[in-house]
Amino acid sequence: MSSIFGDKVKVSVFGESHGAAIGVVVDGLPAGEAVDVAAVEAFMQRRAPGRNRQSTARKEGDKPEVLSGLLDGRTCGTPLCAIIRNEDTRSQDYAKMANIPRPGHADFTAELKYHGFQNRAGGGHFSGRLTAPLVFAGAVCSQLLSRRSGVTVGGHIRSIGGVEDAPFDPVSITTEELRVMSGKLFPVIDDAKGKAMGDEIEASRLDGDSVGGVIECAAVGFPGGIGDPMFDGIENQLAKALFGIPAVKGVEFGAGFAAARMRGSQCNDPFVVKEGRVVTTTNNHGGILGGISSGMPIVFRVAIKPTPSIAKPQQSVDLAVMAPAELVVQGRHDPCIVPRAVPVVEAVAAIVLLDLMLNNR
Amino acid sequence: MSSIFGDKVKVSVFGESHGAAIGVVVDGLPAGEAVDVAAVEAFMQRRAPGRNRQSTARKEGDKPEVLSGLLDGRTCGTPLCAIIRNEDTRSQDYAKMANIPRPGHADFTAELKYHGFQNRAGGGHFSGRLTAPLVFAGAVCSQLLSRRSGVTVGGHIRSIGGVEDAPFDPVSITTEELRVMSGKLFPVIDDAKGKAMGDEIEASRLDGDSVGGVIECAAVGFPGGIGDPMFDGIENQLAKALFGIPAVKGVEFGAGFAAARMRGSQCNDPFVVKEGRVVTTTNNHGGILGGISSGMPIVFRVAIKPTPSIAKPQQSVDLAVMAPAELVVQGRHDPCIVPRAVPVVEAVAAIVLLDLMLNNR
Amino acid sequence: MSSIFGDKVKVSVFGESHGAAIGVVVDGLPAGEAVDVAAVEAFMQRRAPGRNRQSTARKEGDKPEVLSGLLDGRTCGTPLCAIIRNEDTRSQDYAKMANIPRPGHADFTAELKYHGFQNRAGGGHFSGRLTAPLVFAGAVCSQLLSRRSGVTVGGHIRSIGGVEDAPFDPVSITTEELRVMSGKLFPVIDDAKGKAMGDEIEASRLDGDSVGGVIECAAVGFPGGIGDPMFDGIENQLAKALFGIPAVKGVEFGAGFAAARMRGSQCNDPFVVKEGRVVTTTNNHGGILGGISSGMPIVFRVAIKPTPSIAKPQQSVDLAVMAPAELVVQGRHDPCIVPRAVPVVEAVAAIVLLDLMLNNR
Amino acid sequence: MSSIFGDKVKVSVFGESHGAAIGVVVDGLPAGEAVDVAAVEAFMQRRAPGRNRQSTARKEGDKPEVLSGLLDGRTCGTPLCAIIRNEDTRSQDYAKMANIPRPGHADFTAELKYHGFQNRAGGGHFSGRLTAPLVFAGAVCSQLLSRRSGVTVGGHIRSIGGVEDAPFDPVSITTEELRVMSGKLFPVIDDAKGKAMGDEIEASRLDGDSVGGVIECAAVGFPGGIGDPMFDGIENQLAKALFGIPAVKGVEFGAGFAAARMRGSQCNDPFVVKEGRVVTTTNNHGGILGGISSGMPIVFRVAIKPTPSIAKPQQSVDLAVMAPAELVVQGRHDPCIVPRAVPVVEAVAAIVLLDLMLNNR
Repeated sequence: MSSIFGDKVKVSVFGESHGAAIGVVVDGLPAGEAVDVAAVEAFMQRRAPGRNRQSTARKEGDKPEVLSGLLDGRTCGTPLCAIIRNEDTRSQDYAKMANIPRPGHADFTAELKYHGFQNRAGGGHFSGRLTAPLVFAGAVCSQLLSRRSGVTVGGHIRSIGGVEDAPFDPVSITTEELRVMSGKLFPVIDDAKGKAMGDEIEASRLDGDSVGGVIECAAVGFPGGIGDPMFDGIENQLAKALFGIPAVKGVEFGAGFAAARMRGSQCNDPFVVKEGRVVTTTNNHGGILGGISSGMPIVFRVAIKPTPSIAKPQQSVDLAVMAPAELVVQGRHDPCIVPRAVPVVEAVAAIVLLDLMLNNR
Repeated sequence: MSSIFGDKVKVSVFGESHGAAIGVVVDGLPAGEAVDVAAVEAFMQRRAPGRNRQSTARKEGDKPEVLSGLLDGRTCGTPLCAIIRNEDTRSQDYAKMANIPRPGHADFTAELKYHGFQNRAGGGHFSGRLTAPLVFAGAVCSQLLSRRSGVTVGGHIRSIGGVEDAPFDPVSITTEELRVMSGKLFPVIDDAKGKAMGDEIEASRLDGDSVGGVIECAAVGFPGGIGDPMFDGIENQLAKALFGIPAVKGVEFGAGFAAARMRGSQCNDPFVVKEGRVVTTTNNHGGILGGISSGMPIVFRVAIKPTPSIAKPQQSVDLAVMAPAELVVQGRHDPCIVPRAVPVVEAVAAIVLLDLMLNNR
Repeated sequence: MSSIFGDKVKVSVFGESHGAAIGVVVDGLPAGEAVDVAAVEAFMQRRAPGRNRQSTARKEGDKPEVLSGLLDGRTCGTPLCAIIRNEDTRSQDYAKMANIPRPGHADFTAELKYHGFQNRAGGGHFSGRLTAPLVFAGAVCSQLLSRRSGVTVGGHIRSIGGVEDAPFDPVSITTEELRVMSGKLFPVIDDAKGKAMGDEIEASRLDGDSVGGVIECAAVGFPGGIGDPMFDGIENQLAKALFGIPAVKGVEFGAGFAAARMRGSQCNDPFVVKEGRVVTTTNNHGGILGGISSGMPIVFRVAIKPTPSIAKPQQSVDLAVMAPAELVVQGRHDPCIVPRAVPVVEAVAAIVLLDLMLNNR
Repeated sequence: MSSIFGDKVKVSVFGESHGAAIGVVVDGLPAGEAVDVAAVEAFMQRRAPGRNRQSTARKEGDKPEVLSGLLDGRTCGTPLCAIIRNEDTRSQDYAKMANIPRPGHADFTAELKYHGFQNRAGGGHFSGRLTAPLVFAGAVCSQLLSRRSGVTVGGHIRSIGGVEDAPFDPVSITTEELRVMSGKLFPVIDDAKGKAMGDEIEASRLDGDSVGGVIECAAVGFPGGIGDPMFDGIENQLAKALFGIPAVKGVEFGAGFAAARMRGSQCNDPFVVKEGRVVTTTNNHGGILGGISSGMPIVFRVAIKPTPSIAKPQQSVDLAVMAPAELVVQGRHDPCIVPRAVPVVEAVAAIVLLDLMLNNR
């Protein structure tokens, strides 16, 4: 019951959007692992706001300060803590709506749980800003995962509203393709579709509205035989962590919901021998069978709902007087959070997969 | 890394399909709670095989024997253990394919992880049969959840292949509607659609094939303010447990993947006051915002892939000689596991929701 | 909050003294490990009652039935469950004192916690009988620990009342010495002291009384570098588990409480090189520094209070009427539980040390 | 396997003695609880160095900075993080002995585990300095425990070397007595004994040596019926956490090791009715039976070994050349850590007891 997850590698996220600082403790990293802090910061920049016209104008340095666990650029084996100071906070944007919960946000449920003591400004601990330390942790784990195990995690925008990118080829996707994707400002396979997605986002912004999307993520190089049956399988652990990202409303692996419409003869992935290894010719199982990795790419998708903060007036309730209240959300908000969520999804996946690797080998 | 899940209520499942017995330990139930064993058995019967022409012909009494934790029909506060003997085991059905992994099953990944020491017959610990003790646990938790907290959990078959049932109304669904559903042999809202689903299943069976589907589940009466932000929210915990059910490939809450295609103004659920309570006029959030319950019905869906065991010949590999091998799966198998999976999904949800209730109140 | 412990290897104990059965689930054992069931039963016999004049006359076969997790004498990698039926139960011995808590037992605190719903007969889940499945689990873990890692765990009776055995030499204790000890019916180093201990036990029995003692336990061959700083060190984990054995009131490592009376120059163990390895010339640290093993023998002691069930009349309270009541405990009880507790302490240590080994390598 | 402990309240400690900062995250505190930061700092001052001639001369502000979880002096329900900057670090004191492990310290075992990558200066994460954030956490928990539940935790120095203070009266100890003790610079019941202890410490200091001792701690007002049988009882959880304090080598509850020398008739605590409540006339059980509180004061003792850093030359090994090396520890060290460890023991106990309270009510 906490903001901590993981087993071998435990990640503990703390902070509120408009408090003194946000941060993360990563406990359980092996000692002696080089951490390229510049690469970590570059990874974090992919999530940072203000990179284009549609992203929130809030300026955050998002510069992490490492307080412990690193010595001369290498892990010490002890908990790694990094914090990010909150600098550009404008709590007054939020004061006027203290008693009026924003639809689609956690304001109302936080009120039910914390009885008014929660830090309301900017969503507090529920804010998407808390994904910054999560990305820090994921960027570190990603480096270890790649160097120790040859595993690369990468994602792309699979859809924005009704506009769909081409899917990853779940059988043949390569590390190189994932790397190319992570270098893009707007990570899609088909840039024409990316352009259409940008138009969709801009249209929603001009409407004072927002739009959701789907992120597809893959892990290449993940060895077979990792995971567990029943409740601690790869799907269980990834799903548990992924639903910790604000706005995620669905998670599916391999063929996912499409599998529900298939026949078995179509969904079952045939086994063949290829270059001395057993592989499958299709990958509807998403690299996981019975909770355990098959050696095929791990592929999953997460559904991201539209940013709940929109400029349009909305119907809510003034909880102080239990009366209807029209709400116009002030502040700075992305009309579509999906592009910035791609590195967050990758980060969470990297943490979970490193945890699994350390636990199974 | 285990076949255990839960926090306040911990459920530990053990056994293999063709071993001596399967069973479950439920640790953490409060003392003094009446358990109606006949009602538990009735719940288990909903999952049991052999109830219609399409279900596996394997006869299982599935009669649970309670070994501990109950005294005079009430919980003692100590771990509740129940076992189910395996009686009708025909391991020889499986012997001939020991080295040929069945596509879509965990045979291959189990081989990678356990190096040949796994109990292969019938899928061993990976078998759908292991959901019987899970349903036992869920049936017990369901009784506590209902009596202590007035929460009812119920599901229906949302789709089989391409045939769709009407959805639950996520705003107005009632306890009574859920009860009606659980009394049906084939739980659908629209029986005409149920008939078409039956035809779809039968068609796949005649083809020597199988078919998947989607189960929709709701919890009515669950109070607001339960859950946690980030990694131990209701979605996180439900998803982690639900992916422990064999064949589940996707989980979504509220609007789920459909939310990804929505605008914010459409997806955000407006707050209104109704009979002195704050409610939402739509329920795209599925009763959960920021990991915490809103007091609206909790609604989620799980995607079930088609039964991997099919009569059609399939392409696989003989691992002993690393050569192609055609596989014809013998044994008894349901062409569609979805109807029997409904009570399993309900059971898992009941365990998780009781755990959450006990942890938050 | 449960009858489960462990991380990689999780042990879940269930059952009540006079219920249908008691048992244990051991989750997390690696696959393919041979388990010598006869040796497990021999280990369990060391704990079994009725081996001498002073032990309880209750006849228990204590024959474990393995329900899952073993195939052809080897672990499958899935949860290992074993149960022991309760056969010789005489609940009527307990009926008359239902409302009169026995001093030194958990009757009163169980009443506070479970409000009368606990299974009172024979202490229920609090009974020393629950150590039988714990010993089953420990005996299995002990075999893996020895075969995989060359680690031997063994204990002796360090004292009974005021009679003290010679201590283990914490620097030079060998596997062979531990094996000799486990073969003894009354495991002491100095058999003359063992004779005096037997006299002390018999004297207490003739008095209608009981007597406590100290068990010293060592693990030889445990490699250095295993464990963790702070809260998951070897001492933390052993202590947490050892206090799960009924009647344990103290745990100390190395010099333990005696260290509190030492000077640093006397307590610090000098490092030297011996046969190419760094060792210490004394072992006041008990093989553990900063929660991590040093490679020296792990040595600890547990204090066992006298059996609370005694024949002498005792002062208690009839809870039904909140009035004083004299209590004479009926039933069958050992005047000294210490000899039978030796294999229990070894079992718990073996479980914890195997867990640590699997977690660190 | 981590520097995290607790269930409902999770405490995660991070930092190294000579790194940028040390700190703690406390996850799971209820919302709306007032935290008196001045009182927290006063509690921390009791642990702080430099309060008398015998304490290390290192000047530490030990001023905690709260980064999250508090708003207007009250908990928000989200993780509370506080950090303490390391200011007065003199790593060069440690450089020269990089390869020569200090006897009695974790240097050698850290080397085995971390292979040279640990932060060696000042013991790094193993340093007693890490108890500062632990005390911060305990001071906060202590306030909640007292206000919410009327529970007071307090300790005294039970012995230094061979000099013993009077024990707490385990039956009649009061909140007021514990408060008096916490106000003392040198917390003993018998100040004459305190004077003798001071002389003992000074004598060891003049010898270039150090001395150990025993701390006795009590919790008054803890209600009955809290805790669990077997592995999550109060003793299990306290012991697990207490062994996380550097230099603790033993933990005992109630009569503890003395119980091992008793007869049952002497050790069993008779029940009587007093002012309408069931109490015991003696308290050898230390307030805990079967892992569950009885409502009597919880009483336990921890053995603290002598400070391993001493001025006397010591025998060690230069690991770089595997040759004998005489070591003279430089730096600033207390000849007796026991007085400063009293608030640490109280802090850890307060965290565990609050966790238990939140988990059981």
